[in-house]
Amino acid sequence: MRPLTVAAAQLGPIALETSRSATVSRLVGLMEAAKARGADLIVYPELALTTFFPRWYFEDEAELDRFYEREMPGPETRPLFDAARDLGIGFHLGYAELTADGTRFNTAILVDRSGSIVGKYRKIHLPGHGEHEPWRAFQHLEKRYFAAGNLGFRVFDAFGGRIGMAICNDRRWSETYRVLGLQGAEMVLIGYNTPIHNPPAPEHDRLSWHHNELVMQAGAYQNATFVVGVAKAGVEEGVHQMGGSLIVAPTGETVAQAVTEADELVVATCDLDLCRSYRDSVFAFERHREPGAYALIIGTKGPVAPDEARRIDPALARPDD
Amino acid sequence: MRPLTVAAAQLGPIALETSRSATVSRLVGLMEAAKARGADLIVYPELALTTFFPRWYFEDEAELDRFYEREMPGPETRPLFDAARDLGIGFHLGYAELTADGTRFNTAILVDRSGSIVGKYRKIHLPGHGEHEPWRAFQHLEKRYFAAGNLGFRVFDAFGGRIGMAICNDRRWSETYRVLGLQGAEMVLIGYNTPIHNPPAPEHDRLSWHHNELVMQAGAYQNATFVVGVAKAGVEEGVHQMGGSLIVAPTGETVAQAVTEADELVVATCDLDLCRSYRDSVFAFERHREPGAYALIIGTKGPVAPDEARRIDPALARPDD
Repeated sequence: MRPLTVAAAQLGPIALETSRSATVSRLVGLMEAAKARGADLIVYPELALTTFFPRWYFEDEAELDRFYEREMPGPETRPLFDAARDLGIGFHLGYAELTADGTRFNTAILVDRSGSIVGKYRKIHLPGHGEHEPWRAFQHLEKRYFAAGNLGFRVFDAFGGRIGMAICNDRRWSETYRVLGLQGAEMVLIGYNTPIHNPPAPEHDRLSWHHNELVMQAGAYQNATFVVGVAKAGVEEGVHQMGGSLIVAPTGETVAQAVTEADELVVATCDLDLCRSYRDSVFAFERHREPGAYALIIGTKGPVAPDEARRIDPALARPDD
Repeated sequence: MRPLTVAAAQLGPIALETSRSATVSRLVGLMEAAKARGADLIVYPELALTTFFPRWYFEDEAELDRFYEREMPGPETRPLFDAARDLGIGFHLGYAELTADGTRFNTAILVDRSGSIVGKYRKIHLPGHGEHEPWRAFQHLEKRYFAAGNLGFRVFDAFGGRIGMAICNDRRWSETYRVLGLQGAEMVLIGYNTPIHNPPAPEHDRLSWHHNELVMQAGAYQNATFVVGVAKAGVEEGVHQMGGSLIVAPTGETVAQAVTEADELVVATCDLDLCRSYRDSVFAFERHREPGAYALIIGTKGPVAPDEARRIDPALARPDD
């Protein structure tokens, strides 16, 4: 048994004008509640310090800047680190990062029980669009406001296990989990902000919860890892975002899930040793994977025509008799 | 609308001593029934011509040979091709293949309405073990009786769409669907023989159906393709094999499923144009994939230590501040 008690801290809406310090106080309150429920680690969602600002088009870069953190911790976020150290609990926090060289990332950090940052991730799969599209009911300008993460998918040894991170749209891509799984991840932490309405494909809206659970269950099972998915939920500045925060076991089963669209703690004690049951049998990568057949996965970004596919993977051109 | 009516032809058990010609007659009967229900294509499972022989250890190679086809069609399988041409229906058939140079593959073919073979696949992800393990209640000697497929994951333009194939254990690996999805697959045909009892990990047995549906739903949704999964089911020579044959849409929803463990046709009319809704939005690979972050997927077969991971993908060594 290697039990890790994790609290997924789903957040209800954060208004545009809510101050950073008010939000941090709210997060500290959830941290105290998580500690009272025995949590070793509390997981806040993506961009947990502000409203989900990519829903607006800002022409003025200075107006955009207010959503980003230039240092972590900074004066307004330090209370989170202090509370973690005082309570002896770790946390995962998503926020917008502005680096010294002026690059913007959609970032998450992992902080241990002593209040030290022990892991950092920058979102790789940026959804949405890069230009203003006024026809949409609301924007999803992540491709404008963030650069794609440059740190890869890393794992961090902490909390008695091996922890990976991903953010929001990353959870829909099987590659995310596989790269972490190949490094032995035992728990993947994923914050998200997902509008229920998808303007370019409204026919998907009714399936938001199904897709959300499907991709995290599949990622967990196929990589023998726990997955913790944490939403910012509810109607935020007029946009309805899905909840559905959940904790998934390596069995592919949902262990615990949120049932509201507000602030809500979803807590489970996860025995990290459960990963072994899958990693040593059906998903013993070292016995069963066949990377010689996977060339297209890194050989192309988009779809390929048959000729191009055969150039990338000559096995596709081998006579079949 | 590009409707393709497909019939998943789940099979109940085939006994060890059942003749090839008796089985082929049974398959022809299902083909006639599928045609009567409007099917353009009938999909038979993996190793559909014989019992699932990898459950036994054969020391004598000649004894093993009887399960393999040396030609396709051969005298015993020709009635299937004749029926397809006469009825004007295509079929997908899994069988054990022995090539002219003596290599053994776990193979599937796609045959068009004129009775011509238009596609071939040889199973890549071989499960089980390579040596006799007498402690098991039954063997799963696919790694002994088959070579890993050497044709890659290909797609075939047929039946008004683009068709991919995979076999049994392939369906648990996200790479299978991604390689096919990158080539624009609109329907993936997957036959399987899956014992409910997994001797090295019996704790998974209760989850057989969940895992079966989970991996095919995720593969369909994440690659904007239909998936047709077809079982050989029921208690065959003392081993209970799961049913659960199903047809999954690109929505990740199960359109139709088997409810028995016997011969049963699961029929659905699949509008292949539905794939576009996902392929043009959330899974528009050309806009959203980030293959620069996927190096580990082909850079290693098994799990890697952190140092090795950083050697394969230098982004994992980049300073994070």
